[in-house]
Amino acid sequence: MPNINNNIVISSRVRFARNLKERPLPGVAKKAVLIALMEEVKAAVMALPEMEAAFSKKLEDLTLLEKQILVERHLMSCEHAVKAAGSALVLNQEETLSVMINEEDHLRMQAILPGLQLQRVFEMMRAVDEQLEGKLDFAFHPTLGYLTACPTNVGTGMRASAMLHLPGLVISEQINKIINSVNKMGLAVRGLHGEGSDAKGNLFQISNQITLGEKEETILQRLSEVIEQILQHEQNARTVFLQQQPEILLDQVGRSYGILSHAYSITTKEALNLLSLLKLGVDLNLFPEHVRLPIDELFMETQPAHLQQGAQQPKMSAKDRDALRATLIRTKINAMPIPKLQAALEG
Amino acid sequence: MPNINNNIVISSRVRFARNLKERPLPGVAKKAVLIALMEEVKAAVMALPEMEAAFSKKLEDLTLLEKQILVERHLMSCEHAVKAAGSALVLNQEETLSVMINEEDHLRMQAILPGLQLQRVFEMMRAVDEQLEGKLDFAFHPTLGYLTACPTNVGTGMRASAMLHLPGLVISEQINKIINSVNKMGLAVRGLHGEGSDAKGNLFQISNQITLGEKEETILQRLSEVIEQILQHEQNARTVFLQQQPEILLDQVGRSYGILSHAYSITTKEALNLLSLLKLGVDLNLFPEHVRLPIDELFMETQPAHLQQGAQQPKMSAKDRDALRATLIRTKINAMPIPKLQAALEG
Repeated sequence: MPNINNNIVISSRVRFARNLKERPLPGVAKKAVLIALMEEVKAAVMALPEMEAAFSKKLEDLTLLEKQILVERHLMSCEHAVKAAGSALVLNQEETLSVMINEEDHLRMQAILPGLQLQRVFEMMRAVDEQLEGKLDFAFHPTLGYLTACPTNVGTGMRASAMLHLPGLVISEQINKIINSVNKMGLAVRGLHGEGSDAKGNLFQISNQITLGEKEETILQRLSEVIEQILQHEQNARTVFLQQQPEILLDQVGRSYGILSHAYSITTKEALNLLSLLKLGVDLNLFPEHVRLPIDELFMETQPAHLQQGAQQPKMSAKDRDALRATLIRTKINAMPIPKLQAALEG
Repeated sequence: MPNINNNIVISSRVRFARNLKERPLPGVAKKAVLIALMEEVKAAVMALPEMEAAFSKKLEDLTLLEKQILVERHLMSCEHAVKAAGSALVLNQEETLSVMINEEDHLRMQAILPGLQLQRVFEMMRAVDEQLEGKLDFAFHPTLGYLTACPTNVGTGMRASAMLHLPGLVISEQINKIINSVNKMGLAVRGLHGEGSDAKGNLFQISNQITLGEKEETILQRLSEVIEQILQHEQNARTVFLQQQPEILLDQVGRSYGILSHAYSITTKEALNLLSLLKLGVDLNLFPEHVRLPIDELFMETQPAHLQQGAQQPKMSAKDRDALRATLIRTKINAMPIPKLQAALEG
């Protein structure tokens, strides 16, 4: 049985791409058609029991800051955020199910849960999909499978992924080797915000590349196996580091704590990279377990839009954000009753 | 009147190069001649009232660690440290007067005092020189002046210098402009350990290049004027920074404090650079005045040989030194009762 709360797998996600049969794709549909499509799909989605008391917004009714917040929370894609009239987002109350309407496809539905729970999110997604199949007529080809706007999604239309926190593999410089191996197995490795994004905060998203010619269960099985292997490598890297070079680990964790608790200006990237080392410090018992939650919260709270929302300032310069971010982190970290690192090491 | 305790001029130094008339220079003298010369000069130097209870050692009687300590304290040159039999060092009890015997010249005598006291160290040096003139027959040419091994010292044989702490000019990126201007005025700018050394810890040594064709007083006068100007520039840079970008200054000082108080491995160079910013923090009242002395002490205590002497370990790997240096700094800084930086800024 995989360990759900292993602190290395941050979240598990499955998304399905679906389109209505014989209707123009969002990229080519006229606005009136797009709006009619959106209303039809939205009504079907909102009627799901999972969507009781859901958050539902047309894209044109979302402010820039709201869209950024949703992107930072991985509840909406950047591509969807730039859409206008004719597109919408439906989000359940727990923020575990989201449906983007008229993104690249008519429906991009996702289930997301903390920890390693790929099978569970897949089942959540399948339950939603099966109910919608009864209301909407999905474009499905007998040999190809589900038809999608982009050929890379044809077949299952499924993308399954997990967000992994891999500071051990980064510090021990094994990460590139791992990424290469994972790529060879037909899986993709990306940064915090998907395709093309940097690996900030030592966070890596592993997902399937192949959607065609394989069953969902086979894809999930292979992805899970690879994630289990990466988990093992990450744990080994940490163990070896802690046994052979504890002073380097302690130095990196200590410096991160020192900078975060005393900086007066810090970028998102630096903050995430240093918070990653504090998180590692908690994993390795250099810090007490009760500081895990506030540190995890900072990963999200220090993202630009969350920061501005917290300060209730829809517009801010990058410079002011960097100062505000530092103040938020400093205040939160200095309020934690953290015993001296040295004592933790000696203890 | 120059402000002796301005916290920017760390120390003032004057050294005279002298040689005995019609005697072979150290670089060409046979060992027996060198030893005889050394004994003669040493006896004359030791007889000076300034040298009561002096430290006097032949080079072959100094351990490697002792030599390194003397170099780090600016009481002996690197060139002298590598000499063997036939060379010696005499050092007064206060460590303000040192005489290297048979370095490049028969005598390299230096006076060093904290702060901006060029005139005072010159007078100390001249008093020693005048007394020795009565005992030793110095090589002196009626038109050229004192004759020396290297033509760049012929004339006065004097090198006057001051060690300046210029973080303001470094942070505001004005330092290269200043160095270029100073060079054009016939003065040299060097790093912490003289010629060819890096500017670690934002410490710069300003000295005269010209020894020929000018009186000592003229050289000192020009050097003093230039130093006063650099002082002014440094103070302006700090004032402007504090007025216009206090958050950047606070951030740099804060991060330095955070790293120094939490690192578990640190090189000499990084330690000096961060200590420099703490020192700046004291100058700017971000830290209380009573932490100035412990911070100043760390500048010397963290140098490799001082560190090893403190730990009574004549042999250490660089890695072990970096760990020991971090522990020394962490312990000392965490023992300082320093109020929060933020309070200092808001106060």
